[in-house]
Amino acid sequence: MVHNHLREFRGYREKRNEKILSQGNLLTKRFFNIDTQVYDDGALPRKTKELLGLLGSMVLRCDDCVTYHIIQCVEQKVSDAEFFEAFNVALVVGGSIVIPHLRRGVEMLEECRRKEKAGS
Amino acid sequence: MVHNHLREFRGYREKRNEKILSQGNLLTKRFFNIDTQVYDDGALPRKTKELLGLLGSMVLRCDDCVTYHIIQCVEQKVSDAEFFEAFNVALVVGGSIVIPHLRRGVEMLEECRRKEKAGS
Amino acid sequence: MVHNHLREFRGYREKRNEKILSQGNLLTKRFFNIDTQVYDDGALPRKTKELLGLLGSMVLRCDDCVTYHIIQCVEQKVSDAEFFEAFNVALVVGGSIVIPHLRRGVEMLEECRRKEKAGS
Amino acid sequence: MVHNHLREFRGYREKRNEKILSQGNLLTKRFFNIDTQVYDDGALPRKTKELLGLLGSMVLRCDDCVTYHIIQCVEQKVSDAEFFEAFNVALVVGGSIVIPHLRRGVEMLEECRRKEKAGS
Amino acid sequence: MVHNHLREFRGYREKRNEKILSQGNLLTKRFFNIDTQVYDDGALPRKTKELLGLLGSMVLRCDDCVTYHIIQCVEQKVSDAEFFEAFNVALVVGGSIVIPHLRRGVEMLEECRRKEKAGS
Amino acid sequence: MVHNHLREFRGYREKRNEKILSQGNLLTKRFFNIDTQVYDDGALPRKTKELLGLLGSMVLRCDDCVTYHIIQCVEQKVSDAEFFEAFNVALVVGGSIVIPHLRRGVEMLEECRRKEKAGS
Repeated sequence: MVHNHLREFRGYREKRNEKILSQGNLLTKRFFNIDTQVYDDGALPRKTKELLGLLGSMVLRCDDCVTYHIIQCVEQKVSDAEFFEAFNVALVVGGSIVIPHLRRGVEMLEECRRKEKAGS
Repeated sequence: MVHNHLREFRGYREKRNEKILSQGNLLTKRFFNIDTQVYDDGALPRKTKELLGLLGSMVLRCDDCVTYHIIQCVEQKVSDAEFFEAFNVALVVGGSIVIPHLRRGVEMLEECRRKEKAGS
Repeated sequence: MVHNHLREFRGYREKRNEKILSQGNLLTKRFFNIDTQVYDDGALPRKTKELLGLLGSMVLRCDDCVTYHIIQCVEQKVSDAEFFEAFNVALVVGGSIVIPHLRRGVEMLEECRRKEKAGS
Repeated sequence: MVHNHLREFRGYREKRNEKILSQGNLLTKRFFNIDTQVYDDGALPRKTKELLGLLGSMVLRCDDCVTYHIIQCVEQKVSDAEFFEAFNVALVVGGSIVIPHLRRGVEMLEECRRKEKAGS
Repeated sequence: MVHNHLREFRGYREKRNEKILSQGNLLTKRFFNIDTQVYDDGALPRKTKELLGLLGSMVLRCDDCVTYHIIQCVEQKVSDAEFFEAFNVALVVGGSIVIPHLRRGVEMLEECRRKEKAGS
Repeated sequence: MVHNHLREFRGYREKRNEKILSQGNLLTKRFFNIDTQVYDDGALPRKTKELLGLLGSMVLRCDDCVTYHIIQCVEQKVSDAEFFEAFNVALVVGGSIVIPHLRRGVEMLEECRRKEKAGS
């Protein structure tokens, strides 16, 4: 059976973002807009930018951000070999303190792959 | 005239790394080896990995690391447009606290470009 | 119905602080004392200091500290408009990596407001 | 004689920001715009927001950002007593690792005060 | 009854590390090897190195790493008095932002002590 | 000839600390007192505590703090072999981002050793 951590994560994230944007002011909205647009295709392809976002999330050690960018990277067709090379850069740059986030990140990646196979 | 910040940086870096490796033990050497190999071409090209290293250096805010990866990225033919898109990801992920490092990083990039033109 | 995340948080915090102070030595107690007194009214009003504590907690990304300072700010009559302007400073200074903590912080703020209305 | 660290800082900062904005793309400009507007008077007065910016800069330990926000706070009439209470919050939240930045920050504050007296 | 947080932590950690090492490449394995060997007895005894690992985990604020090094320190016969002196260094160096991790760390230490008494 | 980076560092540090303590309030003084006392001999010897302070300074990447604790460790008779094993723990825990601070730290250590030989 396919776990639902990803669905829960997405649901909570969307619901809370809506709350923030409904209560926040114009600058909040602008920041969130930039945060979306910065990963769009440009001189660098979106795939590379999502890998950059993943790397930043790992060395700054934010589980939710790691999960989010893993989901985006999977959509951008990042292969497992590519993921693990990016994980290695995060490990080396950020040190062993990154490992607990890597454990949870790899678990999320496995769930993404199961969902791909299940066709969802 | 071409500035010599880059030459000074490289000279100091090489000299001090030699000192560390001559005094350090086996684990020190192994760590430094991994730190070199992790950016080698693989499933992800070296260019992408150097961009990942640059991103990590910016959000963790280490000037020397930013300088080092800018030099490597220039060697990997990263264009100015690509640099600034990667800088934007660093700005958005890491916040305004990244800006002082961006100021110095862009200065280093300009010096790299001047050296390229001067043929050195 | 009013959720009880806040009650749980307070209960755990108080119980664990007691444990730490009963086992810790004199320096532990002194640090905890300073940590309390630093937010007292002075040249700057307590309200401003709690906002400073909230800002520090957000850019250093500590959920428990964010929750604690949101509770204190609510007691100091910080309005929603003031909260969201402080949140924006945290977002801009600390970057998108702050967003997951903002999601949970805004949820805590909503719970505080519900408790206020419920008169507890 | 009045030192000129502040003048140098401002000159470098302005010159480099111009370079970044002339080379950067639209998102870079938007980020810089938000970074300016977020400290404007609103529900919270600018003075409080500059203190928030100072606190964030100290606990994230960025000398240039500390200098910048000290200059802004001086313009917003933050008194020495208020500065040192904010410094204490930064010390307690961020720990002794903040002290070297406090040393340089207090030096900058002294220079700002000398410039005020000298009428510059 | 003895809680099982420690057992759960160890089980998850071991299972996930296996997954990472089975999927990761040679550099991943090398990093994990160094991460094990760096705490071995040498010029500094293992006990001191585990305290160093604990200190690093606390000031970088990683609960899983704190739990892991507390377990290792208990095996190295670190006394409660020694633990609390190390905790104080972490508090002073890293600031009040360390306190939530101290709360959970002291809870883990209590569970370790209960397991010692229960002879498991 | 023996360099004078260490003398400059100590002079600046002492002068600025005096300024801070003369201008700061009671809480500032208390924080500085705790920051001194926390490294005193106790259940853990001062030598171990200075190594903990060094480790914390390296993984949090503060050059001045690294210099300070290296000086203290030298006074506590930490050997070069012990230093490099502690450096390795910092490298592994904190990652390659620690390396620039290691370069400068090892330079400071060499200067301390030269001063020891010169009998100053």
